[in-house]
Amino acid sequence: MESIMIYMPIVLAILGLIYMTIKQKWVMKQDAGDGKMKEISDHIYEGALAFLKAEYRLLAVFVLIVSVLLAIVSFVVPTTHWLIVIAFIFGAVFSAFAGNIGMKIATKTNVRTTQAAKSSLPNALKISFGGGTVMGLGVAGLAVLGLTTFFIIFFHFFMGGVWTNTMDMTIVLETLAGFSLGAESIALFARVGGGIYTKAADVGADLVGKVEAGIPEDDPRNPATIADNVGDNVGDVAGMGADLFGSYVATVLAAMVLGNYVIKDMGGNIGEAFGGIGPILLPMAIAGAGIIISVIGTMLVKIKSNDAKENQVMGALNLGNWVSIALVAISCFALVTWMLPETMKMNFFGEGLQDISSMRVFYATLVGLFVGAVISSITEYYTGLGKKPILKIVQQSSTGAGTNIIAGLATGMISTFPSVLLFAGAIWASYALAGFYGVALAASAMMATTAMQLAIDAFGPIADNAGGIAEMSEQDPIVRERTDILDSVGNTTAATGKGFAIASAALTSLALFAAYVTFTGIDGINIFKAPVLAMLFVGGMVPVVFSALAMNAVGKAAMEMVQEVRRQFRDIPGIMEGTGKPEYDKCVAISTEASLREMMLPGLLTIGFPLVIAFVPMLFGMDNLAIAEMLGGYMAGVTVSGVLWAIFQNNAGGAWDNAKKSFEAGVEIDGKMTYKGSEAHKAAVTGDTVGDPFKDTSGPSMNILIKLTCLIGLVVAPILGGHANDAMTVENEVSIEKVVQDGNTQVIKKAAIEKYTDGSAKATVKTTTITNGIENVKEETFKGSFEEVKRKVKELGDNVTVSVLEKE
Amino acid sequence: MESIMIYMPIVLAILGLIYMTIKQKWVMKQDAGDGKMKEISDHIYEGALAFLKAEYRLLAVFVLIVSVLLAIVSFVVPTTHWLIVIAFIFGAVFSAFAGNIGMKIATKTNVRTTQAAKSSLPNALKISFGGGTVMGLGVAGLAVLGLTTFFIIFFHFFMGGVWTNTMDMTIVLETLAGFSLGAESIALFARVGGGIYTKAADVGADLVGKVEAGIPEDDPRNPATIADNVGDNVGDVAGMGADLFGSYVATVLAAMVLGNYVIKDMGGNIGEAFGGIGPILLPMAIAGAGIIISVIGTMLVKIKSNDAKENQVMGALNLGNWVSIALVAISCFALVTWMLPETMKMNFFGEGLQDISSMRVFYATLVGLFVGAVISSITEYYTGLGKKPILKIVQQSSTGAGTNIIAGLATGMISTFPSVLLFAGAIWASYALAGFYGVALAASAMMATTAMQLAIDAFGPIADNAGGIAEMSEQDPIVRERTDILDSVGNTTAATGKGFAIASAALTSLALFAAYVTFTGIDGINIFKAPVLAMLFVGGMVPVVFSALAMNAVGKAAMEMVQEVRRQFRDIPGIMEGTGKPEYDKCVAISTEASLREMMLPGLLTIGFPLVIAFVPMLFGMDNLAIAEMLGGYMAGVTVSGVLWAIFQNNAGGAWDNAKKSFEAGVEIDGKMTYKGSEAHKAAVTGDTVGDPFKDTSGPSMNILIKLTCLIGLVVAPILGGHANDAMTVENEVSIEKVVQDGNTQVIKKAAIEKYTDGSAKATVKTTTITNGIENVKEETFKGSFEEVKRKVKELGDNVTVSVLEKE
Repeated sequence: MESIMIYMPIVLAILGLIYMTIKQKWVMKQDAGDGKMKEISDHIYEGALAFLKAEYRLLAVFVLIVSVLLAIVSFVVPTTHWLIVIAFIFGAVFSAFAGNIGMKIATKTNVRTTQAAKSSLPNALKISFGGGTVMGLGVAGLAVLGLTTFFIIFFHFFMGGVWTNTMDMTIVLETLAGFSLGAESIALFARVGGGIYTKAADVGADLVGKVEAGIPEDDPRNPATIADNVGDNVGDVAGMGADLFGSYVATVLAAMVLGNYVIKDMGGNIGEAFGGIGPILLPMAIAGAGIIISVIGTMLVKIKSNDAKENQVMGALNLGNWVSIALVAISCFALVTWMLPETMKMNFFGEGLQDISSMRVFYATLVGLFVGAVISSITEYYTGLGKKPILKIVQQSSTGAGTNIIAGLATGMISTFPSVLLFAGAIWASYALAGFYGVALAASAMMATTAMQLAIDAFGPIADNAGGIAEMSEQDPIVRERTDILDSVGNTTAATGKGFAIASAALTSLALFAAYVTFTGIDGINIFKAPVLAMLFVGGMVPVVFSALAMNAVGKAAMEMVQEVRRQFRDIPGIMEGTGKPEYDKCVAISTEASLREMMLPGLLTIGFPLVIAFVPMLFGMDNLAIAEMLGGYMAGVTVSGVLWAIFQNNAGGAWDNAKKSFEAGVEIDGKMTYKGSEAHKAAVTGDTVGDPFKDTSGPSMNILIKLTCLIGLVVAPILGGHANDAMTVENEVSIEKVVQDGNTQVIKKAAIEKYTDGSAKATVKTTTITNGIENVKEETFKGSFEEVKRKVKELGDNVTVSVLEKE
Repeated sequence: MESIMIYMPIVLAILGLIYMTIKQKWVMKQDAGDGKMKEISDHIYEGALAFLKAEYRLLAVFVLIVSVLLAIVSFVVPTTHWLIVIAFIFGAVFSAFAGNIGMKIATKTNVRTTQAAKSSLPNALKISFGGGTVMGLGVAGLAVLGLTTFFIIFFHFFMGGVWTNTMDMTIVLETLAGFSLGAESIALFARVGGGIYTKAADVGADLVGKVEAGIPEDDPRNPATIADNVGDNVGDVAGMGADLFGSYVATVLAAMVLGNYVIKDMGGNIGEAFGGIGPILLPMAIAGAGIIISVIGTMLVKIKSNDAKENQVMGALNLGNWVSIALVAISCFALVTWMLPETMKMNFFGEGLQDISSMRVFYATLVGLFVGAVISSITEYYTGLGKKPILKIVQQSSTGAGTNIIAGLATGMISTFPSVLLFAGAIWASYALAGFYGVALAASAMMATTAMQLAIDAFGPIADNAGGIAEMSEQDPIVRERTDILDSVGNTTAATGKGFAIASAALTSLALFAAYVTFTGIDGINIFKAPVLAMLFVGGMVPVVFSALAMNAVGKAAMEMVQEVRRQFRDIPGIMEGTGKPEYDKCVAISTEASLREMMLPGLLTIGFPLVIAFVPMLFGMDNLAIAEMLGGYMAGVTVSGVLWAIFQNNAGGAWDNAKKSFEAGVEIDGKMTYKGSEAHKAAVTGDTVGDPFKDTSGPSMNILIKLTCLIGLVVAPILGGHANDAMTVENEVSIEKVVQDGNTQVIKKAAIEKYTDGSAKATVKTTTITNGIENVKEETFKGSFEEVKRKVKELGDNVTVSVLEKE
């Protein structure tokens, strides 16, 4: 049983994917309506396909370029294996495929939801949430399947499928990092490109349609309306999916890397159980269990009454979510006690090796689940309708757009307070419990519910689209009312989902950061070294500049859309009377091209900076470990600043949005009820204009920025790190001898020889003598030719056994 | 000559203060006009005094509380001396006094400038810049006088006025840190409280006056107009003055601390020259020279033609500024070569002791001067009229307030790119040149021109006020035209001055950060330790929350002002006809009280967080050095994030302001000239409303936040740090012997003994032997009773001389 545990996650992932296929078939069998409904839905579907196609074309070029670069690196740097290229390509393909499944099902489910809403709200929920479930399981299933499969392949390729030593496992995991890098690269395109797409279409459609032509939202006469609806899917479905796919893979990978280090801290061998790699398998096992748990969770989401209100729908989603979290906690307990040694040794900085019981690892997973749950509540508080911060923004709208915007900015800024304290507390607690392995497992546990989270999250834009289709095809008002209930719940889940995505990105980055330090073999990252501090500054600046570039990109792309819509209104006869047909595809093409073009610069910034920091100082002959430390400072800067700006922008944007929406039901300002169309509402609309790129483009992009930065660091790590250095160690074997002389003298000797590829070597001999209460520690190093050094070590005395392992 | 160099800065400071008094008398002798002019000017003067009085009352309470706390600490913690309380009180008093001088002269100079502008523009410049000069010399003179005097007092008190060892000097400098803490505390009140004051009055006056009542700016019928004019002085004169006073003192102090460490690295003694404290005296000497240089610089600022335009005025200011910078460079060269040993030893992390020539220290000072000059250009580019970023914001105003605000935000965000690269480059370069001593001296050199910078900076609000008085007293249009020329130049210098203030705060904080690490005796700040990383996150969050609190404070205070102005318009008969007299003092009282009340919460955040981090873990028995490292992580987080948010907010605010101002002369949008009153202009006004608290309240407050955080760290450092630890080192003396045996064997031995107060000791002996190309490094440590350890070290051979210095 134990020995086949390595295949367990694959089996669970396949089970999840089978369930997904069944659900997919079921959704597709539902009535897709007819006439105008179908026509509009087809337009959206085709628009989405057009975006995917264009994206894939660009992706293919990107993947090709990066593959060539990786291949060159793998040939030049001896310890980087060319298999990383294969892993990279498959990581990209798997993520793209998951996005494809999600987009297709989302754009097929929307019209079916509208159709179902004609007769039944419970059915409409069942269908829209079914679509979300397909998306969620597709992402999680493919992530686990891909990562686990490649791990097994590399485990067999490099180690013959049996435990040898931590060094070999490091090479396995370094190669596996390619899969994660591929996945996160797709996320860059989907999240950043998608974010620009969705807002360019939205702003373009609104500016000309609503403001200039005076036609309502989702009016089929507006040429940009299809692009707008496609945008919801591109941004919220494909973007979010790729984001979480990347987080899922990266988190599990980082936890595996740190699991390998637990084994190292325990002396390089922990016995036969689970092939000797229990701590490495554990995160994969939790991820696998999470898929099945999510399936159970999604089954619980249903309502019975056709007259249900938002509360009941929300309640159904919450039930599924909370049950999933509880089940993950239980399975973490079971897996941790089963798979980990009862007591482990972990190396804590400045405190040395400590005994850590497996129970403490379990507590660390609880910390992760806690963070996932609480961050959603925090987000909900700062952006939820009827909550104090929103009411305050509404009040401030009465004195104009200026005060509305100040209030929104302040809300987003203040919301960093509880969020950051939560993250800081989680880092501290999970580290105190089980070191960085604890931090990574906290992240893994939180991410285990990814499929469920995505189902809840993807259901929102589906319901939104369903409402749009109901409007465009001029359905009975009751249909729109029902989809509006779903849409309104979807808006809340969208905000909380963003909170979950930030938390996952933050914890993932921390885990990657920890894995990075272990990969490079540096002692730590000391920001008292000026170059490291300088890079911390530079890293802190990048998210700010990235956000600005993303916002400017939206502005530019939206302007192109405005020109095109204006042209169509001018050139196509009878368009306003509904007799001329707008050229939807031209608008779709514009946002597609503009979004992919405009994401180049921020993408270049993301990828370019860490590479410049890693390789330019090398040209000037800087020490590799010093560079590794600088790059670590940069990564920390990006992470800290990126998390802050993500929270700030997402919550400010969400708050403005709901402040605007508050006017729809009417709000009381200075004792007077105020509605849509009032001056205060206009001010709130201005605030929402600012908030749109915040919450849908630059804010969510931060997740990708910080994860991709840390991943690039991780992939570069072996090049900078100890065992990849040009004239670097071939092996570093330590043999320990203890000799007790007399009654009151104890001598402990340790010797280690590092042999370099240039034939030279360095020996370190540490002798601790304790006599009459005096502790004497002697550390000697010898440098010279390998033979000389070996002789010198031998000379030191009989108590030292020298074992040198040569390799490569 | 050399031995009396210690008194030189005092003499130069006093010379500067004498020149200031002469200039002050000269300004006061100028014609102050009559009638309405004088009446309005008196109102502003009284309003300023009212604010100062209220501020001093609150300050007295604050200083009392902190003094008591410091006194308790100094009695409980053996290594903290009670004299720190005295230093603290005097630091606060000196800074407050400098602010007082500045405020008084500024509010007296304004009306004299108006009067002079009736006949002569050159005279108006001479008078307004004269007022600025008084302010600048008052701040710089008192800063140098106070710091140097207290240094000499403590140097005599603790060391008898002669060099003993670095340990004693550390106590001198730790006590001197109280002076800096006092100065920076005043800056908190003046900068944050002042920032809230000025914007509350401004927004309050505009909202009711311009918008509701439809009367122009600076109309005497508006009850808030005096508060508005007082606000310019409170924020821009007193706030900026206290900010730079704090930076000046803190920079010099930090450089002195690091100078002491240079002496330590050189073996604890550098010979007789300059009493053996050349590296410690140097920063004070540069500061002293800077005062005289600034006097020369201010003398160069003059114009001849009555028809001069902005360019000529700006040119005159630039001449003075550039000559000052050049003279500082020259004096740095002279002082560095004269006062420093030709070659010094400095300890670089991971690279050990290195020989550093004094020339490299000089180059480091050039780096500082370069930063000061370039940061102004960067600020000017992103916020200057007619520059590309401003033109873009103007264009984006045509599509409404939303796009205007996005463009402004993006401009502020992007402006962090060159600024942070500049800072990062400066940190790197000055550290590479001369370690953290180089970083601190770079800051010192930059700050040497403080008096000149402040003169240029304070002249702006004086000219602004002069224009206001011209308007309110209904002068001939030519008077307003002339003051407008000065005002316009003042707006530019205000923006560049903010850049200088940020740069000074950033470099000062870095220098303090470096001094902190040396005070606590920790090895560095390793962000790979989770608690340190957690604190880096928390530190990064604080500036964001602080900014939000400051912005909200402005909103609240402005609302109170609005209520009061509305009440006066309602209750005072004939106020709109000019027959009823508005109650200016009530409005002044409201902004005074509101600003001081509203600064409590952000102030508490600033002071409370580092104290909580330092003392709460102590209660749980956490290791002091671990706490010190955490606090260091927090300080780094606050500094990195604070600098980013300062640049972002200042430049976004400045950009919005000038985008709005662009409409006054007319701008071309889509080929059409657009002016004040257009829809685009209204959008730009909304942007400026958002920008006002950004650039005048929350942005500049960041400077204080980061400096005060690092200063609190520095004051807490001895409590956490090495030599305050219960059973810690008494002395750490190293003696080095080199022996060359044979032709091809070289032996280098180093020995060091650390004796602890509990009687135990630790010895470290490092022996490097190089024979036949093999380098053998042997490091031995002995722990045990002091006598045992000493005997052991002696046994090692004749080549090791052990010198142990016992103390306390």
